[in-house]
Amino acid sequence: MDTTLTYYQTAIIEILKYYANLPSKGSKDIEEQLIIDTENNHYQILAIGWEGAKRVYYPIFHVDIKNGRIWVQEDATDFDLVGQLEAKGIPASDIVLAFHAPYHRVHTGYAIA
Amino acid sequence: MDTTLTYYQTAIIEILKYYANLPSKGSKDIEEQLIIDTENNHYQILAIGWEGAKRVYYPIFHVDIKNGRIWVQEDATDFDLVGQLEAKGIPASDIVLAFHAPYHRVHTGYAIA
Repeated sequence: MDTTLTYYQTAIIEILKYYANLPSKGSKDIEEQLIIDTENNHYQILAIGWEGAKRVYYPIFHVDIKNGRIWVQEDATDFDLVGQLEAKGIPASDIVLAFHAPYHRVHTGYAIA
Repeated sequence: MDTTLTYYQTAIIEILKYYANLPSKGSKDIEEQLIIDTENNHYQILAIGWEGAKRVYYPIFHVDIKNGRIWVQEDATDFDLVGQLEAKGIPASDIVLAFHAPYHRVHTGYAIA
């Protein structure tokens, strides 16, 4: 069980770091923060900053590990984070598409919770 | 310098944990995630979940430490996070009100960046 948790943590961190190191297409005033909390199992890349008078604050990715499953809370890209997780051998039954409302998850082929 | 960093980290974590342990007034379907990344110095409490078909995702607090200063990125409460930091002895000159656009910060009496 601990081995699975460690594998899932490592997979998420590798994918997020890979993405964070891609050349950014965004504004130079917008910071992309890589946030890693392995104790509480929250993993994010956040876009944060100001475009003139307009506040920018949104998750590019947000992933949690809860009860042994990976909850993909947000994916604002066409990078296919879920596909990247599956490419690392993580089964769909251990992935929750939390960006879908719970009543939609039954149709996804992924875990519901 | 390291002593100051450690003191600022401890102060932020104490304040966020104190807030996280207050009785929640929000919906039971909305999770309040305490996120602590002491390596990259990002600290958050995020509200995340679903209210029926409506996605909820917003920062209650988001604080960074950058170049020795505390950047208060978001405070969605009347808890007065900045006042709590000052009550712990952190000077206004080390606090950036990042939730204000840079050109507004000159009028705040706090650090600009």
